[in-house]
Amino acid sequence: MYFYKDSFVEKTDRMISPDDRGYYFGDGIYEVFRIYHGKVYEQEAHLVRLVRSAKDVRIELPYSLEQIREIITTLVKKSRISEGTLYMQITRGEAPRAHSFPQNGKPVMTAYCTDVPRPTDAMDNGIRAISQDDIRWLRCDLKTLNLLPNVLSKQAAVDHGVQEVVLHRGGIVTECSASNLMMVKNQILHTHPANHLILHGITRMVVLRLAHALKLEVREEPFTLEDLYQADEAFITGTTVEITPLVEIDNKPIGSGIPGTITKQLQQQFERTFSK
Amino acid sequence: MYFYKDSFVEKTDRMISPDDRGYYFGDGIYEVFRIYHGKVYEQEAHLVRLVRSAKDVRIELPYSLEQIREIITTLVKKSRISEGTLYMQITRGEAPRAHSFPQNGKPVMTAYCTDVPRPTDAMDNGIRAISQDDIRWLRCDLKTLNLLPNVLSKQAAVDHGVQEVVLHRGGIVTECSASNLMMVKNQILHTHPANHLILHGITRMVVLRLAHALKLEVREEPFTLEDLYQADEAFITGTTVEITPLVEIDNKPIGSGIPGTITKQLQQQFERTFSK
Repeated sequence: MYFYKDSFVEKTDRMISPDDRGYYFGDGIYEVFRIYHGKVYEQEAHLVRLVRSAKDVRIELPYSLEQIREIITTLVKKSRISEGTLYMQITRGEAPRAHSFPQNGKPVMTAYCTDVPRPTDAMDNGIRAISQDDIRWLRCDLKTLNLLPNVLSKQAAVDHGVQEVVLHRGGIVTECSASNLMMVKNQILHTHPANHLILHGITRMVVLRLAHALKLEVREEPFTLEDLYQADEAFITGTTVEITPLVEIDNKPIGSGIPGTITKQLQQQFERTFSK
Repeated sequence: MYFYKDSFVEKTDRMISPDDRGYYFGDGIYEVFRIYHGKVYEQEAHLVRLVRSAKDVRIELPYSLEQIREIITTLVKKSRISEGTLYMQITRGEAPRAHSFPQNGKPVMTAYCTDVPRPTDAMDNGIRAISQDDIRWLRCDLKTLNLLPNVLSKQAAVDHGVQEVVLHRGGIVTECSASNLMMVKNQILHTHPANHLILHGITRMVVLRLAHALKLEVREEPFTLEDLYQADEAFITGTTVEITPLVEIDNKPIGSGIPGTITKQLQQQFERTFSK
């Protein structure tokens, strides 16, 4: 079950126009929604971010939010997904190739659900990462289809036999190739401020909310790679990775090299937010 | 006549897979070749750049250079294009959405020709531009499908009733949204060095070659927006815009506000490189 251009269709290998601006320019936006127990998690927060991305790249959403909610509900129901994701992307439409916006291009939405189990092993044991220069553009807060630098970073992780890449600009840690990053030092939770240099992750937001509820001190301020090396604990956050401990970076253990106490506490609290 | 996935086909509105990584991530590269008198201009220089883009984003070309040359020849011949462009893009292939490279994804090439007349009016009378911060990633030398910032800049030009946007990083002029930029001051030709911050334009290269032949002093060194305001002449270069005078920026005339003498000289010399 696939949503494409106003209807629910069967997915085929040939359905997108070569004139789709998503294909020429990566000219589009997207969201990945998490499904737990057959229900979309934090749906409204994702929709708020979708609206913001659309506004800032100046794509007019092809449907009302009410219609998008209905499309989501139908997809989840018909796909009978219990634990998985719903991927949705919206491009600026189809037109002969020219950089400037087309006069009459109607934005093209595609959306579908996939079974995705929770990454229990990684969440229990943690993952390892290497660091790399963050060479992305200066609007990393927008969830757009211009993801080539993220792709190259993620592959660098694979090539190094680790699971993620920690990105930094001149030593200041921003986030990872496909997740946000947090660290704990002296019982204080540190993460990069939600400005134009990082994605404003929904899971990041939920975790900060949980940290406040736990009376944990939170500092949304820039910190360095050196600070991360010296951290007591670290973890990444994201829609599919949830809260996954980062136990090693650049071949050095973080803290004692195992998932930390505060990380585990946050994982437990996080799980409660979607448990039945 | 369209080349797609190993064969020459008729273009349709439904031919690309929604799992094409070009559609998910802008994970691909491209070239725009110029056709004059039914022949591809500077074909080998474009192919060298294509190979370099492919290498740096780690896409394996799906065909040998000899095969690509044959595809180009066939497209130009069958399309019966006299003056136009040949667009070619290569994505990393089709696979379920995941950032890291697919195990067995074969890169997908699409290519086709379009009639494109020479922009004689703009070349004769010049164009106007506004300036904007260059917020692109730090590998602007690669010709990739991650073009959203270029799209947004080009549209900003349209919105301001001008034809281009001059990009600058903290005041240092890099290039334009879809062309390189040169300026003349005291008989010296200035342009940004061909490093990671600008596209290494083929027309830019040809123009520098012509400038050397004309014994014009050339400085491939960074210059500022303020320098550009004070320039005697300026022009943009590109495969379709060729050498187009820039006569106004940010509502201020450049030089006397009409195409300059050296610019015209270079235009004449450039025309000779492809005249019969």
